[in-house]
Amino acid sequence: MTGMKIAIVGGTGFIGEGLALRWARNHEILIGSRDPDKARKAAPGYIESLSCKGISSIIKGYSNEEAVTRADIVVISVPYESVAGVLGSARPFFKDQIVVSLVVPMKKNEYYKYTPPPQGSAALEMRDLLPPEVRVVSAYHNVSAKKLCNLDLEIEGDVVVCGDDDDAKKMVMSLTREIRNLRPFDGGPLGSSYMIEALTPFLLNLGKMNGMKDLGVKFV
Amino acid sequence: MTGMKIAIVGGTGFIGEGLALRWARNHEILIGSRDPDKARKAAPGYIESLSCKGISSIIKGYSNEEAVTRADIVVISVPYESVAGVLGSARPFFKDQIVVSLVVPMKKNEYYKYTPPPQGSAALEMRDLLPPEVRVVSAYHNVSAKKLCNLDLEIEGDVVVCGDDDDAKKMVMSLTREIRNLRPFDGGPLGSSYMIEALTPFLLNLGKMNGMKDLGVKFV
Repeated sequence: MTGMKIAIVGGTGFIGEGLALRWARNHEILIGSRDPDKARKAAPGYIESLSCKGISSIIKGYSNEEAVTRADIVVISVPYESVAGVLGSARPFFKDQIVVSLVVPMKKNEYYKYTPPPQGSAALEMRDLLPPEVRVVSAYHNVSAKKLCNLDLEIEGDVVVCGDDDDAKKMVMSLTREIRNLRPFDGGPLGSSYMIEALTPFLLNLGKMNGMKDLGVKFV
Repeated sequence: MTGMKIAIVGGTGFIGEGLALRWARNHEILIGSRDPDKARKAAPGYIESLSCKGISSIIKGYSNEEAVTRADIVVISVPYESVAGVLGSARPFFKDQIVVSLVVPMKKNEYYKYTPPPQGSAALEMRDLLPPEVRVVSAYHNVSAKKLCNLDLEIEGDVVVCGDDDDAKKMVMSLTREIRNLRPFDGGPLGSSYMIEALTPFLLNLGKMNGMKDLGVKFV
């Protein structure tokens, strides 16, 4: 699959950068930020990172709203606390895109704890915040941003994909296969997203307690 | 570590059998059952399975209460629904053993769902049901019984161990290393057990939806 326009809302963050770098080989990437100047400044750096590896790419910076308007797929890669604000202002610019939620609501005291909203998960809340034509898919919660950003690493790991629209889910599973050694798993309906979202605080705690960083997960 | 007495309450079940077979190389195994005849009948079969591989073992069948009385470590491997009944009658026979909970409270409709008790997890409920001197550790929720029972398989997987007593936790982590290719992870206090218990329904759903059986987990 090539030639899609993938907007990454929160694309100047670490995980957003990683996905942009990994997908730019096959797709046009639209970096979105609340501050369009920040997005426009980030884009040339991403292009340069790929260029060093002999990969040509089209990566541009936009406001979140501009990025959403132009995109086939919109990845929401912002902290949970920013989701309602970001989607509130971008909502009128959505049509029937596929929206991919990477969002995990969690709190940290001594340990991280999953703190889902009343809907049951960030993905279900996102579905409520967006127009009904938008197909929300939940994925990539537990992929290490650090490993994604390092193009010399072949990140290993399994990606669980939840969603209620089969075509949208298949599309995201196919995008996952484009990132070498990532293996997509069908995680069932969007209502099951809480299970995979809850893995993020679990992996963070586990890493901290066992002196390991950037833990991902594989199903064996 | 060798020569401990490990009681397996629910030891005639599939996962109980698997742990008995794997630990019997180094330890004396006490199979516990509500029906002591069933436990006594199961034991020779386990001994025979090991004998075929040239491994001599001491495995005996008892009532749950007898097994608990005699044991250094007690593994609780019964369905969640039976825990309160089993521990209710065995409670007077506990002293200061280490108790290992494999228990996962879950319900199945279309998908499996984690359904923890008011305490927050099966492990925390178990702590409430036992004398305060007992040190409860939570582990082995996501190890495939089928793979454990097949001595020709080197099961691969990671085991997260939760508990409030460091020595008890270290003991269980050490027992985990005795099962080749199983790698123990410190999962933090017993209060974190819900995170690892919740993985069981998640893995069952994931396996069902992706046509894979007996999924375990590895942290990468």
